[in-house]
Order: sequence, then C-alpha cells, then structure tokens
Amino acid sequence: MKVIADLCIVPIGVGVSVSKEIVICERILSAAGLKTHLHAYGTNIEGDWDRVFAAVKQCHEALHAAGVPRISSSMRFGTRIDREQTTEDKFAAWKKN
Amino acid sequence: MKVIADLCIVPIGVGVSVSKEIVICERILSAAGLKTHLHAYGTNIEGDWDRVFAAVKQCHEALHAAGVPRISSSMRFGTRIDREQTTEDKFAAWKKN
Amino acid sequence: MKVIADLCIVPIGVGVSVSKEIVICERILSAAGLKTHLHAYGTNIEGDWDRVFAAVKQCHEALHAAGVPRISSSMRFGTRIDREQTTEDKFAAWKKN
Amino acid sequence: MKVIADLCIVPIGVGVSVSKEIVICERILSAAGLKTHLHAYGTNIEGDWDRVFAAVKQCHEALHAAGVPRISSSMRFGTRIDREQTTEDKFAAWKKN
Repeated sequence: MKVIADLCIVPIGVGVSVSKEIVICERILSAAGLKTHLHAYGTNIEGDWDRVFAAVKQCHEALHAAGVPRISSSMRFGTRIDREQTTEDKFAAWKKN
Repeated sequence: MKVIADLCIVPIGVGVSVSKEIVICERILSAAGLKTHLHAYGTNIEGDWDRVFAAVKQCHEALHAAGVPRISSSMRFGTRIDREQTTEDKFAAWKKN
Repeated sequence: MKVIADLCIVPIGVGVSVSKEIVICERILSAAGLKTHLHAYGTNIEGDWDRVFAAVKQCHEALHAAGVPRISSSMRFGTRIDREQTTEDKFAAWKKN
Repeated sequence: MKVIADLCIVPIGVGVSVSKEIVICERILSAAGLKTHLHAYGTNIEGDWDRVFAAVKQCHEALHAAGVPRISSSMRFGTRIDREQTTEDKFAAWKKN
C-alpha cells in the first residue's frame, strides 16, 4: 500500500531550538530511500506504507538515542485505491483548476 | 517502545456520513488488544509502537476493502524515555496542577 | 458557523513536563463557556467558530505570558452545513452502527 | 502575535477529487496577503495571527458556499516570543546543522 504523508516531529525537553533534531530526521528519511520534501512545518514523505512508518519509528528512536527525552509528533497520511497518485499528480491537478 | 497516540481517520468519497467507517476502525483497534478511548474527534490509543501502527495500517486496509476509495488520516503520537507514562498518569498530573 | 474541534498545545522550552500549561489552557477554555472534553492527547472543543478560535488565541497568549517561549499546536476542526451536529450526535451515530 | 502555520483542509461529501476545493482555498489565502507555500499535504501560512485565522475561516465559508457539505481540517500553528522567526529563518537553521 502506497502512502503520501506529512510528518512534523516536535522534540520536548531540549530547549527552544529543535533544528538539530529536524536535521537528524531528514537524514534518516533520505537514507530510507523515500521521496521527501521539507517545508516550513513538516516533511512530505511518499512511499510504501511499511517503509514510511519504519522510517518514522527510526526518527523517534534516533532522537531518543541522541538524548531527546520526549517527542510529540503529528502526521497526516493518505491512501487511495481508486487510482495511483504521486505528489506530482497532486500538483498537476491543482494547476488544472 | 511505548507510544500514546491519537488517531483521526477521514474516509473520502463515501458521502458526508462516516460513522460506519469509524465503527469498523474502533473494532479493529479493540481487537488488537490496545487500550483505546473514542472521543468526539479521534481515538486515543496506547500501546507498543509496532502494535499500534500495525492496527492503524489494518484500519486503512479494512476501510479500502469495505469500498472506501480514499482516506486521509491525522495522528499525533508521543514517546518518552525519561519515565514510563500511561494515559492515567497524564490525567493525574493535570489534576495535581 | 458552528465548529467541533480538537486542540493539542505543545509548549516548547519549559522542560519535559507540560501539565501546568495544559491546566492553564483548560481553565481558559472552560471560562470561555465552551463545551470541552479533555482526553489523553488533546481537548475536544465545541462552539461558535469565533469564540472557539478566540479561546485558542487566548491559550497561546496566556502560556507566553506565563513564560513559555515557544508553542507548537495541532488542531482538527470540522464544520458542516448539511445538518446541525453536536458531539453527542456523533457518539449516537457510532452506537447505531 | 505572529504565527507560522500549516493548514490541510479536507472536503467531505464531494467525491474523491478535492483539487477544485484546494484551489479555492489557495486563492483566498493569497488574496489575504499572507505568505503561503503549497506542498503535497497542506499549505504553509505565515502572518499575523488574526489575519491567518480570518483567512482560514474564509476558506471554510467559501467551500460551504461552493456546495461542500462537510469539511474536516487539520492545522499546526506555532508562536514564539523568544525571537522573531520567519520560515526562511527555519530553513537557514536547518542548513547550518
């Protein structure tokens, strides 16, 4: 099952700056071979369901291993069976309207 | 890794009423042996990370199998390594303040 | 316009415990005369759109005034024009299925 | 109060394709003079709190006026008082790490 997702990880208990933690996660998602796009409030992730969620788990594990005591993430994820869709398809549909 | 989560599944393309789909998911989450609490805009889920996310995947699969063409979910999930915490602990902490 | 919402406020930069901040927000939402239900990962809020969002803004302002340097909230909010709906109606619909 | 937000509006009851509705919202957010960035699962919005949330309300109102019977949105929004921050600042911080 293919999923298009958007992940926002919020490290708690490491102070106000969380950019170091965001970079750790970006590297994990890239290394997982997933198509990603980092934006101002999260990261788009596209790929096979199991690989996407395995990478999300790896992000939590890596941040805790790096000393982050608590993490609160929010994620959107969409699946569909009516047709195949990529993020590029989404943008193309918006441009037509 | 233990996770406390909150899941909101939105079926798309089945009309305005989605209560049938919500009930399908509630049954899956209960059958998975996870501690859950259904509220007005989602479901609290507490348990082992892998079991929680396996159940979430099962919800998407079951809804698609039931004819839902498209699903958009939003989920919050928190992990912590500083101490064990249950949803009851959260409520107790709020009452103390 | 009536809205049924779910709000999760995450204070950043105040350490791992955020229960004090959650209590501040609960008091603001109650004082605003909104119907609320606190659960393990957020708060259901039901009421008039403008009053709900005014109270959400007040939560951010009060936490900053209390010394919280940074806040990251996630919120779900639903509106509908096909019929009136309360949170009780939602639960009743789920029970019928 | 300045806010950096991310909005995802899901129209319910209009079928599986929601690209027409996304375009309506994009136009409203742009017309509101807000800095926005459309990505694969939402839109970044940066601006004054009141103007951002007024535009979000306008999106719900415009979609209902266009015949959408039900809408479920999810939104993240962050505020901070320790320093001024733009979305560009966020990206710059990530690049340094």
